[in-house]
Amino acid sequence: MTRNRQVLLSERPSERLDESHFSVVNSGVGVPSTGEVLVRTILLSVDPANRAWMQARTYRDQLQAGRVMDGFTLAQVIAQNETDIPTGAIVECEHGGWQEYAVLPASEVRIIDVQAPLQRHLGALGITGLTAYFGLLKVGRPVAGETVVVSAAAGATGHIVGQLARLEGARVVGISGSDEKNAVLKDQLGFDEVVNHRSDTLPDDLRAACPRGVDVYFDNVGGPLLERMLRNMNVGGRIVCCGVVSQYDTSSPAPGPRGVPGLLVAKRLRMEGFLLPDHRDEWPEATRKLAAHLEAGTITPLENVIDGLENAPQTLIDLLAGRNLGKSMVRVSPDPNLNANRSQLT
Amino acid sequence: MTRNRQVLLSERPSERLDESHFSVVNSGVGVPSTGEVLVRTILLSVDPANRAWMQARTYRDQLQAGRVMDGFTLAQVIAQNETDIPTGAIVECEHGGWQEYAVLPASEVRIIDVQAPLQRHLGALGITGLTAYFGLLKVGRPVAGETVVVSAAAGATGHIVGQLARLEGARVVGISGSDEKNAVLKDQLGFDEVVNHRSDTLPDDLRAACPRGVDVYFDNVGGPLLERMLRNMNVGGRIVCCGVVSQYDTSSPAPGPRGVPGLLVAKRLRMEGFLLPDHRDEWPEATRKLAAHLEAGTITPLENVIDGLENAPQTLIDLLAGRNLGKSMVRVSPDPNLNANRSQLT
Repeated sequence: MTRNRQVLLSERPSERLDESHFSVVNSGVGVPSTGEVLVRTILLSVDPANRAWMQARTYRDQLQAGRVMDGFTLAQVIAQNETDIPTGAIVECEHGGWQEYAVLPASEVRIIDVQAPLQRHLGALGITGLTAYFGLLKVGRPVAGETVVVSAAAGATGHIVGQLARLEGARVVGISGSDEKNAVLKDQLGFDEVVNHRSDTLPDDLRAACPRGVDVYFDNVGGPLLERMLRNMNVGGRIVCCGVVSQYDTSSPAPGPRGVPGLLVAKRLRMEGFLLPDHRDEWPEATRKLAAHLEAGTITPLENVIDGLENAPQTLIDLLAGRNLGKSMVRVSPDPNLNANRSQLT
Repeated sequence: MTRNRQVLLSERPSERLDESHFSVVNSGVGVPSTGEVLVRTILLSVDPANRAWMQARTYRDQLQAGRVMDGFTLAQVIAQNETDIPTGAIVECEHGGWQEYAVLPASEVRIIDVQAPLQRHLGALGITGLTAYFGLLKVGRPVAGETVVVSAAAGATGHIVGQLARLEGARVVGISGSDEKNAVLKDQLGFDEVVNHRSDTLPDDLRAACPRGVDVYFDNVGGPLLERMLRNMNVGGRIVCCGVVSQYDTSSPAPGPRGVPGLLVAKRLRMEGFLLPDHRDEWPEATRKLAAHLEAGTITPLENVIDGLENAPQTLIDLLAGRNLGKSMVRVSPDPNLNANRSQLT
């Protein structure tokens, strides 16, 4: 009988996350009951949100220790029991989890129209590309000629945000914590300017990179950088609240940024949070547009694919420390033959 | 020759504002140069923003010690020099200041269409009524059946916000620091529920007053109450950032509220600041609507009129301590004969 390798969150971290908080176990492969599917995981998405779920109740319940670590996956349906999902279909699983096989309610999986290598469907064509798209275009709403700044700019969402903003005609400034990552953003992805948030001269660097101030700040990190950016915003500016990665890997998130709400009043700023599922109706249109840009080469995707389920904990730890370029994911099993539902090969 | 009584900001406060920071002096009455008007102050608006201007640069330059205290006034034109403002006109003066007479550029005064006792033109029909109108309807955008909470609810802006929100069909909860003020809000102004922010059981009181959570929070105070309200907001909620009165009368404003930006993401909240001048094009329409409500009795104005320019400092000090009900203002000189530009008497 096939075994099911699983990574458990064996202990919830109180301080910084490390490998000791996880354990790898083998269990049996489940059998789908009525209305369920059995899937085999192909790719596992590794996201800062994974750490946030351990910290507290967010838009979902807090993770509990002793359970399979939760995560978004791409998988292939191996068996199904009275559902309308065919065996062989490639599906997105919102709660596939860090495991090789999963039994899931059919309502929690979604067949995807495979148009590109599967890893792209977890990144630029998947949840992080869509996050960039809706956050920037629906919340930030940049206008040509405005200055858009994005933090965690070399991350899964950030590098797409910057490229979409350039396509809108904005001046784009990326902030990351590494000169090497910044070089990729500027030399390969077309960012107008880049800033290293670890620089001793950060305030001056930001002013130099944004001589006309900041109209849209796409905030993936929160913390001191958000406080700094509040001071650099122009009147009428918008702050897109996408994530707070600077505060996830800690027991006690910092107080909020000084300047809230005073600067929001004085400069008539809008700060607004969003989550991807709220825009579900517009996913198909957004995916089409992103696919067209990828095909035309007007958006370059960055992907950080790590092999082996057992490496998922370290991949998340590296991500939280900023040691990733682009979308982080773990390959759990090889791509299957995809002719079944691949509409276009790239 | 007529003397001009003036109140100077003799020293900028570093901690709590008191009478020692002001001095009353007499000077000569100025003569308008070309393009200027000489006005006699009738009513002086006393607003929390007066204290904010002392603290730091906001949407305007910080106040300097040794100068006439700045303030918004209603005044009558006594003389003018090659302007199109007729002598006798009643005007709003954005920088009339705490003085009996002022010489001002014609571009900084605006003739008002007197429709009601002048004090109403400083309150419900003036800057604070319009602030309530635009903040609630353009930024907060409540929908019938939603819950709207307003802080400093018995203040100049707050008591109009609450009544406008009820007219939109919202459930309205007012927060103030006094049971006496709350009784007025509930018994005379039709607020659905009231909460005293000094209560030992504030979290429970808020939950009880808002059993379906909070959709719009009109924030006049910032500080710990804003942090508390962030936790009570519903998904998709809006926080109207109007003022930060809890932090003006201090040398060091508190850090920002915990939950920014984390809760903004998790609950898809929008926090947005605004200033009245940004909506200038819509002032006439808004004033007409407010006037109709006042005439119909569907909005009840609260006005706190103190006689005598020399009492302006204490009026501001009382306002900052929450010892006011409704719009605070100081009567500097009696209403003139207003037949000149009064279109309707009430």
